[in-house]
Amino acid sequence: MKTYRVAVLGATGAVGREMIRILEERAFPIEALIPLASERSVGKTIPFRGENVPVSLADKENFPDVHIVLGASPAETAREFAPFIRQKGAVFIDNSSAFRLFDEVPLIVPAINPEDAAWHHGILSNPNCSTIIAMTAVYAIARLSPITCMNVTTYQAVSGAGAGGIAALQNELSAGDGAWDRSVFPHPIANNLIPRIGDLLDDGYTSEEMKLQNEGRKILHLPTLRVGCTAVRVPILRCHSIAVTLTTAMPISQKAARQAIADAKGCILADDAEKEIYPMPYIASGKDDVYVGRVRKDLGRENSLSLFCCGDQLRRGAATNAVEIAELLIR
Amino acid sequence: MKTYRVAVLGATGAVGREMIRILEERAFPIEALIPLASERSVGKTIPFRGENVPVSLADKENFPDVHIVLGASPAETAREFAPFIRQKGAVFIDNSSAFRLFDEVPLIVPAINPEDAAWHHGILSNPNCSTIIAMTAVYAIARLSPITCMNVTTYQAVSGAGAGGIAALQNELSAGDGAWDRSVFPHPIANNLIPRIGDLLDDGYTSEEMKLQNEGRKILHLPTLRVGCTAVRVPILRCHSIAVTLTTAMPISQKAARQAIADAKGCILADDAEKEIYPMPYIASGKDDVYVGRVRKDLGRENSLSLFCCGDQLRRGAATNAVEIAELLIR
Repeated sequence: MKTYRVAVLGATGAVGREMIRILEERAFPIEALIPLASERSVGKTIPFRGENVPVSLADKENFPDVHIVLGASPAETAREFAPFIRQKGAVFIDNSSAFRLFDEVPLIVPAINPEDAAWHHGILSNPNCSTIIAMTAVYAIARLSPITCMNVTTYQAVSGAGAGGIAALQNELSAGDGAWDRSVFPHPIANNLIPRIGDLLDDGYTSEEMKLQNEGRKILHLPTLRVGCTAVRVPILRCHSIAVTLTTAMPISQKAARQAIADAKGCILADDAEKEIYPMPYIASGKDDVYVGRVRKDLGRENSLSLFCCGDQLRRGAATNAVEIAELLIR
Repeated sequence: MKTYRVAVLGATGAVGREMIRILEERAFPIEALIPLASERSVGKTIPFRGENVPVSLADKENFPDVHIVLGASPAETAREFAPFIRQKGAVFIDNSSAFRLFDEVPLIVPAINPEDAAWHHGILSNPNCSTIIAMTAVYAIARLSPITCMNVTTYQAVSGAGAGGIAALQNELSAGDGAWDRSVFPHPIANNLIPRIGDLLDDGYTSEEMKLQNEGRKILHLPTLRVGCTAVRVPILRCHSIAVTLTTAMPISQKAARQAIADAKGCILADDAEKEIYPMPYIASGKDDVYVGRVRKDLGRENSLSLFCCGDQLRRGAATNAVEIAELLIR
């Protein structure tokens, strides 16, 4: 069996560490794992297959000779390193937003559009975390009828702000009221929520909110899909939950929608509220599947369904999806 | 100045205590305050105007001779006591769901439909907490154009489940993972959310979710309003936040909507996300106003606006609203 040299760019962050854990879990055929990070993380080690692998400096001028690079860095770093990765002939699977909307870059959720991996030119993008989770649920319905528009409201975990976000919430909870690290969130997050994620755009939406529409269109192959989104940070460690109301071109019954979700790749139908079964962070945490429930006809609009879904932000929303893209490439 | 004998039914619960605090704060003209509760609370005292007022047994057969009863009890208790309160000639301002949809009972948010207080027949109902908060924000827009339909997603505090809900979250946070009181919530609530509030109905909605439509219609005088709601419990102590997307009969600009909210009674426009100003529990906590922000054209639907609002569940969502209804009656 062929084995691969794999670098993880941004290996010491929350997503980078999760990628390495998942490479091990899924027994990805690795010849050598090379964790890369910035100066201040050099000297750290990362556990992998019973060893402590030292972190190397991410140096674009001396980029290691690898087959695959999993990117878990900010968009700026991804943009900076991409030409050097390409020059080495490696394939770059990037979790940042840097290349997601480029025409020549496939944007992939393996349970939805694995075929798009075939036409890559050296870079493949991993979608936004909320987008992956919401679209995994929505795709089950999109297979029954085209979706014309959606309203999406998110309950996003602090892990979406990286290891610093997780530490910020944990510190606030242990230190009590009044102590918060302003370098991560502009307001306290324990016993609070923050209805702004990302940069502000002219029309009052944030960059995070627009990802649901812009990335959703590309993943679902629905170029005119309209999505109105409100993205909200909540005091939860690592699972994103998302309420979706979607309008379909043809009417879909509650029963058909539930069946489609139960049959869909990457989805678990958790929809028996009478028995207290519905998607929740404490169930989805540490899992790779997206839990979907509360499926019902929307009372507000014609031809519309509402559902609630939940997925582990670090796994399904980032690391697992990226490793699955790598698996598509070596298949 | 005329003064009144006021009883609070369910005086030792989270809402009952808040009602008594607010009667004092607003200097309601009280001749005598009579806190009533069940057997197990008799003997407790409640601070009011520098005194510790003893809690009396709520005994329907020997109901005290009062002018006004503020109800902070479950619906069952309200139903049981109402005939006896009426027999005594007192006016019953009830916070429970027992009578809200009765044709002969006004359902009032004083900032929206104070005129409805005039036609009461001894009972006036205080609306559901999320409904009060959402409709206070929505009414500002409804004055510009009739609203035809809405999608509402809630982030509801544990105080909505009473003093027990608050204690449950506090205990989980101090005791750490794994310890939760199953008598209040069916799942842990710290580091989690629960997308079911209320009883399950046949169509998959919950009783809590239907209140937004059914009570909203009555408060706004819009009998055909359609509301699709998803109600979710979040690990926040006492403020409900609500994301609303509403469709208006006539198009409303973002600017006009913002101005209407800034001018509306009971609303504070908190809408400058670039400067990190938006509605949040830690800002709205302990306040009587509803904070409204993130006002923007909805990208998903024509003639639609999205907004995010937040209000103190115990005050604006319950106790303050009830005391304001009492103030309407004595005016």
